Amino acid sequence: MTDNHDTICAIATANGNGAIAVIRMSGNKSFDICKKIFNPVKSDRDIETVKGNTLVFGTIHDNSDIIDEVLVSVFRAPHSYTGENSIEISCHGSTYIQQKILQLLIENGARMARPGEYTQRAFLNGKLDLSQAEAVADLIASSSKAAHKLAMNQVRGGFSKEINSLRMELLNFISLVELELDFSEEDVEFADRSQLVALVEKITKVVVRLRDSFKLGNAIKNGIPVTIAGDTNVGKSTLLNALLNEDRAIVSDIAGTTRDVIEDTVNIEGVTFRFIDTAGIRTTRDKIESLGIERTYSKIDQANVVLLLLDTSRDLEASVESLSNIRKRIDQQQLIIIANKIDKATDEQLEAFNKAVVANSGEYLIHIAAKSSHNIDTLNEVLLKTCDNTTADNNQVIVTNARHYEILCHAYESLERVTEGLNSNISGDFLAQDIRMCIHHLGEITGTISADDVLGHIFKNFCIGK
Amino acid sequence: MTDNHDTICAIATANGNGAIAVIRMSGNKSFDICKKIFNPVKSDRDIETVKGNTLVFGTIHDNSDIIDEVLVSVFRAPHSYTGENSIEISCHGSTYIQQKILQLLIENGARMARPGEYTQRAFLNGKLDLSQAEAVADLIASSSKAAHKLAMNQVRGGFSKEINSLRMELLNFISLVELELDFSEEDVEFADRSQLVALVEKITKVVVRLRDSFKLGNAIKNGIPVTIAGDTNVGKSTLLNALLNEDRAIVSDIAGTTRDVIEDTVNIEGVTFRFIDTAGIRTTRDKIESLGIERTYSKIDQANVVLLLLDTSRDLEASVESLSNIRKRIDQQQLIIIANKIDKATDEQLEAFNKAVVANSGEYLIHIAAKSSHNIDTLNEVLLKTCDNTTADNNQVIVTNARHYEILCHAYESLERVTEGLNSNISGDFLAQDIRMCIHHLGEITGTISADDVLGHIFKNFCIGK
Repeated sequence: MTDNHDTICAIATANGNGAIAVIRMSGNKSFDICKKIFNPVKSDRDIETVKGNTLVFGTIHDNSDIIDEVLVSVFRAPHSYTGENSIEISCHGSTYIQQKILQLLIENGARMARPGEYTQRAFLNGKLDLSQAEAVADLIASSSKAAHKLAMNQVRGGFSKEINSLRMELLNFISLVELELDFSEEDVEFADRSQLVALVEKITKVVVRLRDSFKLGNAIKNGIPVTIAGDTNVGKSTLLNALLNEDRAIVSDIAGTTRDVIEDTVNIEGVTFRFIDTAGIRTTRDKIESLGIERTYSKIDQANVVLLLLDTSRDLEASVESLSNIRKRIDQQQLIIIANKIDKATDEQLEAFNKAVVANSGEYLIHIAAKSSHNIDTLNEVLLKTCDNTTADNNQVIVTNARHYEILCHAYESLERVTEGLNSNISGDFLAQDIRMCIHHLGEITGTISADDVLGHIFKNFCIGK
Repeated sequence: MTDNHDTICAIATANGNGAIAVIRMSGNKSFDICKKIFNPVKSDRDIETVKGNTLVFGTIHDNSDIIDEVLVSVFRAPHSYTGENSIEISCHGSTYIQQKILQLLIENGARMARPGEYTQRAFLNGKLDLSQAEAVADLIASSSKAAHKLAMNQVRGGFSKEINSLRMELLNFISLVELELDFSEEDVEFADRSQLVALVEKITKVVVRLRDSFKLGNAIKNGIPVTIAGDTNVGKSTLLNALLNEDRAIVSDIAGTTRDVIEDTVNIEGVTFRFIDTAGIRTTRDKIESLGIERTYSKIDQANVVLLLLDTSRDLEASVESLSNIRKRIDQQQLIIIANKIDKATDEQLEAFNKAVVANSGEYLIHIAAKSSHNIDTLNEVLLKTCDNTTADNNQVIVTNARHYEILCHAYESLERVTEGLNSNISGDFLAQDIRMCIHHLGEITGTISADDVLGHIFKNFCIGK
């Protein structure tokens, strides 16, 4: 890892021409290299001697050619993003100037930064822990309010705090167990077993909550999957169009028009939903369509929310059967029953429907007319509510990172072994080993424990310049 | 123009996600507005009280939600780009964060900047003159070293200096003429007519040089037009491909393959050349092809450089005739004669060719084999030389702006009228009027004299944020 002592540079702003662009440089030689190509307009504003966190106006030159008039921001270690001496050159945003300045920095001793190398250095220099560093990439990529909020919370250390407090409790725990090991010949018990059982139970609960929050966290990051299910020709594609406000799906009056699974995302008040239209569920002899129905079931399994669409103007028995089938199929998904085509149904039909189709506790029932977008607003509100249960609480930590999820699964396994060990009264040696393993896993999240290849893998997905 | 007192804001970096993005705000209320949404991490770093040209680290918040951790650059009037109080917010480069911060600034009293409004304010506040301000847009758009150099020179005031010195001389001139008018009844001559004639001659010479430099200046900005001419099937398209390093033109052995005029630009050591392949010049009965030949002639007229391609392996008389035709057609263009297919020609053919085809003074003759790219390097060097004559001199001012060119043409016309007036001994009244007109025109270039609609037109072509 000797190249962590190199001075690195990169264009930090988005690609292409803009009014201005920013080029970053970080490392021991930042000031030296910058001085070779930069002349301050006021000679007393030498970047080597000015205070940190100040701006110096001047020109970048290539020998006698003036390349640009720029502002140089000077940051002195450790008060910089990376914790090293750093400068940022704010130049005119032509691609030519950006490339030329980068080239001059490299000619004078800097090297191109690798993707994520700035944040990696911030981590290595203790400015951020690993889970915070990872969230920086999420923050830049987040395109919805909800995803941004989760990333921002993680950047600011919310997740790390929770993990660290679990780790501290386990460290206290193990110190008692290991104290027993030191006195093993005397057969003393410093760690009250019943208290330990309670503590492990408590920690397990938190780990399980965090692990299970990944489904929602991942959904918020990538869009909450909402599957639209129902018999053929009850208006699923029409509903999707109403939700998307555009004619995305092909709509026709012929039953079974939709064979492919169509996905599209829509941002409802800052939350991204990924709507999945499916083929209707019915007995069919059409081979292609029956494949579509199979996929519908698999899409129901993957969804967080299932919209079951029923046609109030049609055979009531079919609706009742449909609902019963879906209730059998769904597990933890939120079910929203939608009574569609209320503009087409007679009063008698609606009355009979409302008697036969009743929402169970935890389910929603909404009456709409998809074609005229009637009551789609109510549906949007209910959709927001379904994810509100978990996102409403600002202090609730939600896992969004697949690496963290995997580690939490491992941590849970070690905790289960600890519980088993406590129940079967295994020796302190083995108990300590399982607890150590759990502490190790939690440390992997914040980077207290980390291997070089893990770091390399994490930062390679960053953009260059961050 | 009351909206020049508004506080304006814009995203200044290129569109899209980057590691960081910069949002600018300028105007009286910049600090007030910023304080409403920004909390410095260190409470003593209040942006209202910190020194100008310093950076403050802190968080942008929307009520209780933290939107981002940012660096705010503080600039105090008049030490800013616009000459007003300004701030720049350097935030994480997600589109969501950029838009959200912009929205917060607008909600708190700023308005979106119009294209070029920052530079317009810099002009109105006397930080730049008009020709410098115009060059800022060119600087951002310039994609080659040569175009960048011209724009940089103009931003740094090289052009303004030359125009202002002409204007000063004319102002001295007119003060003498007007002194005469005050004493008109006494029939004195303060302004020595022969000296005035010499002065007008000198100024005319400079105006003509500047006016005529526009052809090159415009060429450097948009790519120097180089027309490739020659008989059919001498290898024009093959040469173009060799120059472009790609298969852009269709190449075949059938004479007359190229009917459309094909254009493509290539950057040779920092200078952009716009190569124009043309239909071969020969007598043809194909109507579409004869249209192509007409266009070839018009392209020769528009070019700065004409490459005449001759086939050394074919009928010598045709080559000699071709050269003679081209020499009759070209006017001020640089002619480069290219002896192609030297790998195919016999020794006798080459010997005969070299005797019959000789470069005149001011012309170049190069032997190549386009198909194998033999000697293309030499051709590149010669092409660079053809524009070197005028660009080599760093202190030479070159006009690149069509508005300036037009004004210089008007200034020249007034100078001609002054000369005529002096020759025909017209009265001082009329003389003064023509000189005044010339002074007025030169003032339009630097913005000493400018109408609102001219300003609006100039700045509307800028990008927003500059």
